[in-house]
Amino acid sequence: MCPAEAVQNVDRGWIIPIGGAEDKENDLTILSKFWELSGGKKAKILIIPTASQLADTGPRYVEIFERLGGKAMYIRVDEREDCFKDRIQGKLKRATGIFITGGNQLRLSTILGGTPVAKLIRSLNANGIHVAGTSAGAAIVTEHMIAGGKAGPTPTEDGATMAPGLGLTNKLIVDQHFRQRDRIGRLMTALSYNPFISGIGIDEDTAAFINPQGIFEVVGAGSITVVDPARLTHSSMHDARHRENLTLIGMTVHVLGEGAKYDINTREAFAE
Amino acid sequence: MCPAEAVQNVDRGWIIPIGGAEDKENDLTILSKFWELSGGKKAKILIIPTASQLADTGPRYVEIFERLGGKAMYIRVDEREDCFKDRIQGKLKRATGIFITGGNQLRLSTILGGTPVAKLIRSLNANGIHVAGTSAGAAIVTEHMIAGGKAGPTPTEDGATMAPGLGLTNKLIVDQHFRQRDRIGRLMTALSYNPFISGIGIDEDTAAFINPQGIFEVVGAGSITVVDPARLTHSSMHDARHRENLTLIGMTVHVLGEGAKYDINTREAFAE
Repeated sequence: MCPAEAVQNVDRGWIIPIGGAEDKENDLTILSKFWELSGGKKAKILIIPTASQLADTGPRYVEIFERLGGKAMYIRVDEREDCFKDRIQGKLKRATGIFITGGNQLRLSTILGGTPVAKLIRSLNANGIHVAGTSAGAAIVTEHMIAGGKAGPTPTEDGATMAPGLGLTNKLIVDQHFRQRDRIGRLMTALSYNPFISGIGIDEDTAAFINPQGIFEVVGAGSITVVDPARLTHSSMHDARHRENLTLIGMTVHVLGEGAKYDINTREAFAE
Repeated sequence: MCPAEAVQNVDRGWIIPIGGAEDKENDLTILSKFWELSGGKKAKILIIPTASQLADTGPRYVEIFERLGGKAMYIRVDEREDCFKDRIQGKLKRATGIFITGGNQLRLSTILGGTPVAKLIRSLNANGIHVAGTSAGAAIVTEHMIAGGKAGPTPTEDGATMAPGLGLTNKLIVDQHFRQRDRIGRLMTALSYNPFISGIGIDEDTAAFINPQGIFEVVGAGSITVVDPARLTHSSMHDARHRENLTLIGMTVHVLGEGAKYDINTREAFAE
């Protein structure tokens, strides 16, 4: 899906993909910045733990955000029919920030996809509500997402499987746990199909805070690796044999540390 | 990508995915209807044979459209750098109809994706120029496309691989050679990831003529099978084992013969 249309004269909400394993015990750099953005002491954070199958994922984030101050609650959405309940939609509409937990991104796309909950997240974000997601929750924010794939540094014919995501932005593909799980080959594979889009690989405890103008800043302990295929002169994906290593010529790569920025529209990177 | 924005007060161009193997010898039902829509004797048809690696694909379609009357030409785009040439872009800008041939859809996405040619096709279509594509050329017109997969009636965990297409519409996923290559399992697999979108399986020598309002009519010798997952209550894709058969509960299916219609926005089907 393309991003939902914004009401005129309202800034879109921020989009905040997090690379997973964000600090939850010490200074909570990423979570507290998201909470501040969502109103601080006046924040109402709505947590969507659907990607996870652990019963304590929702309560755990509620506890973290309540420790910071303000209100937090989670919704239980385990089957598609849950997404049609007025009660669930009402809770979403009262949120100032939406937080999507980790787990399996295909649980998010198969359970939320096409339902009133997915449509509401899209229209709320278009109209000023911030949406953060960690790990699987980061993958799902984009139009084209990586559903699965192989670890390792080399892009291969079978290196990534793609699926449609929530479509809050159509300018990026996100990969997470990036350095920790050695995923640069998988991200490059995802870009090799159609190089119209930039890829960002987000390390653990690291986030891209994407503002309404489409500029993100790196926040957290790790780095974000941007792979921009705009100047690609060749991708061998169309004639690669099964499992073959791919040839990709002319990618631009930026490795961005904390405070560095990237404009997802102009594809320019800026040091701090 | 989302469809490009239209200039105000101009109807978008039609989008015409064809299931492959359209009649080229007898009454040319599909090709002549596209030619008429593009101006008939005043038509300037621009053929993009990039998906094919056969040298005579472009000249063959030029010959067919010139037989009907009007003008036709093809462009040679075999590497990404070709897409940056002013001469190629100039030819596109003079077309009243664009025809994308069959071959391998990953040649289209890897060679055209993100280049000025892809952007131009998108903006021309948004501003009234009709775009037809057959086989691989049909797959590429949508935002999410099927890049490959397995034949057979049953959706499976590894039944379809997805990639980003040209994005002229974001309401459909198209599959081609549908009955001839037994692809209903593959189409259902493609929809199982995120059921926000309808799938259409187009038989050979059959086309969906999608008008600017998003209503298509079936034209040609075969049928179009619509799979609408809007009421899906369960997709097992998120916990399927490798190669496992999928469980998909609650799909709506229409089989549409010549003259029947489908509204891709409201998801309603109409008999002739």
